[in-house]
Amino acid sequence: MARELRDLSDKACIVGIGQTDYSKQSGRSVHTLALQAARAAIADAGLQTRDIDAILPYILGPTADEMASELGISDLRYSSIIKMGGATFVACLETAALLIHNGIARNVLVFCARNGRSGTRVTGRVNTIPGQNFRRDFENPYGFSVPGQWYAMIARRHMIEFGTTREDAGHFAVAMRKHANINPNAMMHTVKMTMDDYMNSKPVFDPFHLLDCCLESDGAGAYVVSAAERARDMPHKPVFISGVAQAKPACSDDLCNRPDMFEIGLTKAAPRAFAMAGMKPADMDGAMIYDCFSYVALLELEEAGFCARGEVGDFVKDGRIELGGALPINTHGGLLSEAHIAGINHVIEAVVQLRGDGGSRQIANAQRIAVTGWGDLGDGALAVLRS
Amino acid sequence: MARELRDLSDKACIVGIGQTDYSKQSGRSVHTLALQAARAAIADAGLQTRDIDAILPYILGPTADEMASELGISDLRYSSIIKMGGATFVACLETAALLIHNGIARNVLVFCARNGRSGTRVTGRVNTIPGQNFRRDFENPYGFSVPGQWYAMIARRHMIEFGTTREDAGHFAVAMRKHANINPNAMMHTVKMTMDDYMNSKPVFDPFHLLDCCLESDGAGAYVVSAAERARDMPHKPVFISGVAQAKPACSDDLCNRPDMFEIGLTKAAPRAFAMAGMKPADMDGAMIYDCFSYVALLELEEAGFCARGEVGDFVKDGRIELGGALPINTHGGLLSEAHIAGINHVIEAVVQLRGDGGSRQIANAQRIAVTGWGDLGDGALAVLRS
Repeated sequence: MARELRDLSDKACIVGIGQTDYSKQSGRSVHTLALQAARAAIADAGLQTRDIDAILPYILGPTADEMASELGISDLRYSSIIKMGGATFVACLETAALLIHNGIARNVLVFCARNGRSGTRVTGRVNTIPGQNFRRDFENPYGFSVPGQWYAMIARRHMIEFGTTREDAGHFAVAMRKHANINPNAMMHTVKMTMDDYMNSKPVFDPFHLLDCCLESDGAGAYVVSAAERARDMPHKPVFISGVAQAKPACSDDLCNRPDMFEIGLTKAAPRAFAMAGMKPADMDGAMIYDCFSYVALLELEEAGFCARGEVGDFVKDGRIELGGALPINTHGGLLSEAHIAGINHVIEAVVQLRGDGGSRQIANAQRIAVTGWGDLGDGALAVLRS
Repeated sequence: MARELRDLSDKACIVGIGQTDYSKQSGRSVHTLALQAARAAIADAGLQTRDIDAILPYILGPTADEMASELGISDLRYSSIIKMGGATFVACLETAALLIHNGIARNVLVFCARNGRSGTRVTGRVNTIPGQNFRRDFENPYGFSVPGQWYAMIARRHMIEFGTTREDAGHFAVAMRKHANINPNAMMHTVKMTMDDYMNSKPVFDPFHLLDCCLESDGAGAYVVSAAERARDMPHKPVFISGVAQAKPACSDDLCNRPDMFEIGLTKAAPRAFAMAGMKPADMDGAMIYDCFSYVALLELEEAGFCARGEVGDFVKDGRIELGGALPINTHGGLLSEAHIAGINHVIEAVVQLRGDGGSRQIANAQRIAVTGWGDLGDGALAVLRS
């Protein structure tokens, strides 16, 4: 019999995390940044670089081969590219767990390095997002060509159908900034933001204004996954991968022909991941929600099952998603206010919290955290992590 | 405990295969070719396109998203890109088996489509082989820039160290052509080749002459993998994935700095795959050996353990690798004489043989066949398939 997904639950752990400083001008190549984060994650796990036997690279930046050579890994037993944009680093937890649990690899390295601010910028290089021939042939010629424009269509539709307002998204953006203000590694650590600042920021892609948009960042993050039975002997408190799933929306390469614009990959991935973990959204002590744009995070909260469709406006207000609230979200500040490291920083922050290492931004008694990813035109992944 | 690799053995089967005609001028896009082969493979498995829930695409050509949209698959649960060049389609058997056995997917589609003859040619577009910064920075500027040149270095070294001759490689190339002459789908079906033709063909990259080099081809191939316990109820005799492994050489992105030029990915992958299957090379009734260049196939035969290092010259002569010989190899004609479909045609031919559908090129009583892949600068994979 094919095995049940439940069987994969809690078999693998995140045992090491590493990150660089996040900045507008790193002055370092993506290779240098990737190696810095990867070496930090490997050391954090108490391992040597040669202990790594599988690498899951991002589709942009150093390849698995390059990293293996540069880290001195002479026997790489597995590598693959999970092409899901910002959902990649949550989805990679699934592949890592598969490799560990089935004996293909012992220690899996996942990393992301970007010079998004000083080098290749998402908005300037949409051709680096592969495939999507519909967009290339029928949308790009009309100037409908960058992620903010695509997702703005979904946001505007949500506003029309459910009465979602700019203030709703503003509650999310302001909460992110508050969290960044207590995270020394956040690019916006010292920059305050009020709801007035948010409302008065300049329009970019209607209905997105500047403060709805994530940062562009230089930096890198990495994590290491190993078997649960070995994790207990490693330096840090293990973080168990209890549930994880990835999914794509219908018409994944074409936003405009979908039967339901709000049905994203996460709509399908979230219930599978929670079922695998034997938990539900209400069991979470915190959540790391991929926030390339504030409205995208709102949509994800609904589709991941944290609240019903159309009700996210109430869900995010009155400090409910801030530290100390009912469901603290993105205690690092997220892509909006910490840095855009394609969501690997969300996985890292979940580990920091579940280890209890959050310091002044620690979620009290954090034992269960959901992490979401969103990529390309709505690819989605969700992981349920526990201490 | 992390599970033993043996546990994954025989849990998944290749249940469908499909291929297009192979030609110099298809007049069709890679998308059209890919869909033609994919639909054929899905139909061959007795499935509908909507039954596919995971897709493993090639790094070149249509993406998983595009294929899902074009095939009408609305719930794609997994996709990843195995970036191993011509080892991809053997390595994909490992990922497919993992997905099936762990309940991530039920029916996995793997495909490759190329317009290598009429469109993007390997020799003209080395930049499509990603990564490998060493080559880009330090080798390409000196004109050392295409696969034939890289592999020629290994071949020449082999000739120096072991006395391997052009005639040795000629035995391989001539055997491939003989097989193509009995395969109606082979591009070289009607074109004969003698040892004299081989010896007198023009030099290309010393020691490679023209008839050491694979074809460039338009065409596509695809296969579908499903669970063993379901495969018995499907239209064709199941082909079990008994063993499979992938590996990279040390210094995988840099040929010239390796401690041992002959130690390729296959050197490590082959013993793991045979151990997983509980078999050895001598148990094989046939072999499909990735033959982008004749010398590369010779090296693979040694490193996969079919004969000792330096002894491949004797291994391939006197018709031993031809139909009716001790170990028939590439009964379809291989990349040298059937078509260059990046080795997915080797997997397909193994299935044809194990089903007993080989017709005039059928290996008598074929029950166990090894398939190798070779990619980029020596990435390797080996699968042991059985009926």
